[in-house]
Amino acid sequence: MTQTVTSTHPFDDAVELAAEAAAPGMFRGHTSAAYANMVGPFGGITAATLLRAVLRHPERLGDPLSLTVNFAGPIADGEFEVVARPTRTNRSTQHWSIELTQDGVVATTATAVFGIRRDTWSSTEIGAPTAPPATDVAATEFPDFIAWARNYELRFVEGAVPDPDSGEQDTSTSTLWVRDTPPRPLDFPSLTALCDVFYPRAFLRLGRYLPAGTVSLTVYFHADAALLAAQADDAVLATARAQRFGGGYFDQSGEIWGTGGVLLATTHQLVYFKA
Amino acid sequence: MTQTVTSTHPFDDAVELAAEAAAPGMFRGHTSAAYANMVGPFGGITAATLLRAVLRHPERLGDPLSLTVNFAGPIADGEFEVVARPTRTNRSTQHWSIELTQDGVVATTATAVFGIRRDTWSSTEIGAPTAPPATDVAATEFPDFIAWARNYELRFVEGAVPDPDSGEQDTSTSTLWVRDTPPRPLDFPSLTALCDVFYPRAFLRLGRYLPAGTVSLTVYFHADAALLAAQADDAVLATARAQRFGGGYFDQSGEIWGTGGVLLATTHQLVYFKA
Repeated sequence: MTQTVTSTHPFDDAVELAAEAAAPGMFRGHTSAAYANMVGPFGGITAATLLRAVLRHPERLGDPLSLTVNFAGPIADGEFEVVARPTRTNRSTQHWSIELTQDGVVATTATAVFGIRRDTWSSTEIGAPTAPPATDVAATEFPDFIAWARNYELRFVEGAVPDPDSGEQDTSTSTLWVRDTPPRPLDFPSLTALCDVFYPRAFLRLGRYLPAGTVSLTVYFHADAALLAAQADDAVLATARAQRFGGGYFDQSGEIWGTGGVLLATTHQLVYFKA
Repeated sequence: MTQTVTSTHPFDDAVELAAEAAAPGMFRGHTSAAYANMVGPFGGITAATLLRAVLRHPERLGDPLSLTVNFAGPIADGEFEVVARPTRTNRSTQHWSIELTQDGVVATTATAVFGIRRDTWSSTEIGAPTAPPATDVAATEFPDFIAWARNYELRFVEGAVPDPDSGEQDTSTSTLWVRDTPPRPLDFPSLTALCDVFYPRAFLRLGRYLPAGTVSLTVYFHADAALLAAQADDAVLATARAQRFGGGYFDQSGEIWGTGGVLLATTHQLVYFKA
């Protein structure tokens, strides 16, 4: 008797979508306990799932250029439906509108721009943060109640999660080496999820946990498929900081750097907080 | 015989929307020659018009928190239709999906988050760029074929539009004092338009004009109505820079600073270019 053991990476399990044969662009998915956050799923896994709906659409043109995800309401544990609709297809770019619903109620909306890249003049004007090699930085244990973080190997160079003795601080920058655990080759959905790997910047500034959640997340993809393939399952250097806190919201900007200091993605978000 | 002269500001003329009585959230608008760009309208005026459709919607809750506009295709001179749809309304936030069409063809899509702000701890972590007072900086004449720029008083502190002798340069930062001309009190639509006031960063790096256009624009609003009222029609200090150029696209991040160094908005965009 032979036994076949198939093993799916928890990430692939979490972003799995079943296409509805009757309606192109309509998919069924489900939340994954492995990527649960304090309330509902990790925003990064939801963003990755919505991007994946476009990637799996039969009419999809090219690779992702930009993605904006709006977290409109909580996602309950269980099944959800994703509809991805091409709103306009041009010669080399394509625009998408995406909605995640549960029982007909909208929980998340998104827009995406896909396109075919051309060779052009190139220049990276910003620089990667200074950091020792990933192997020289200790891996961080996240608190047990944040399930999703157990799927990442997180090595903070700067701005680790505050502990009770941290106190307030003047800057909100976190820089960390991060990769999926178990290791998994980087692709567009996992790069998208990594753009949301930063815990809320208000925790860092105030030195304590407080209610917070991403309202809107934008990713600009600089990596093409070849660059992702070259990155394979090596750790990326992720860095983010807030710009302005006030009136119950703050904005955050970040970058995801690949091996050799190549810029894979830039990312921005608006975050709700209570303090 | 008495004569009444009513004068509308060209900005208000350009973002004017007529509500369709039969369908709440459906509006008719038209392009404005005063805000024409090289091809089609100035992106900032389109973004402002889409925001205004939400502001005019009878179900609108609170003030704008974030806006993402995707420029899906050209807008031809003439009439267009805008549909603004609330996708989800929570207790203190509201999510919107907006589409601009011409003859049923989608030209621009957007999502927006509106909400009611609460008093919280606040901090501005970034600083305004150093600049002499607006009155000490000469106003720039834009080339005549860029109609929209004639509606702005532009005083470049750094990174003015290149001329034939400029040559290439290493950084893509522009910083300028800017306000509507004739002066007009700042409101959410005009702040939105100002977030797109930066000419393409690739012009500055390469020292020449080239084909370029915004693909996706995001605005995070930090100003509330009181802060806008305090700004009145004073010039704002606008600054922006690119992060990465390559594969036919670059991303840009910027900030709009008000009087006294208050941060009114942060803004990001992905831009197509050919070079």
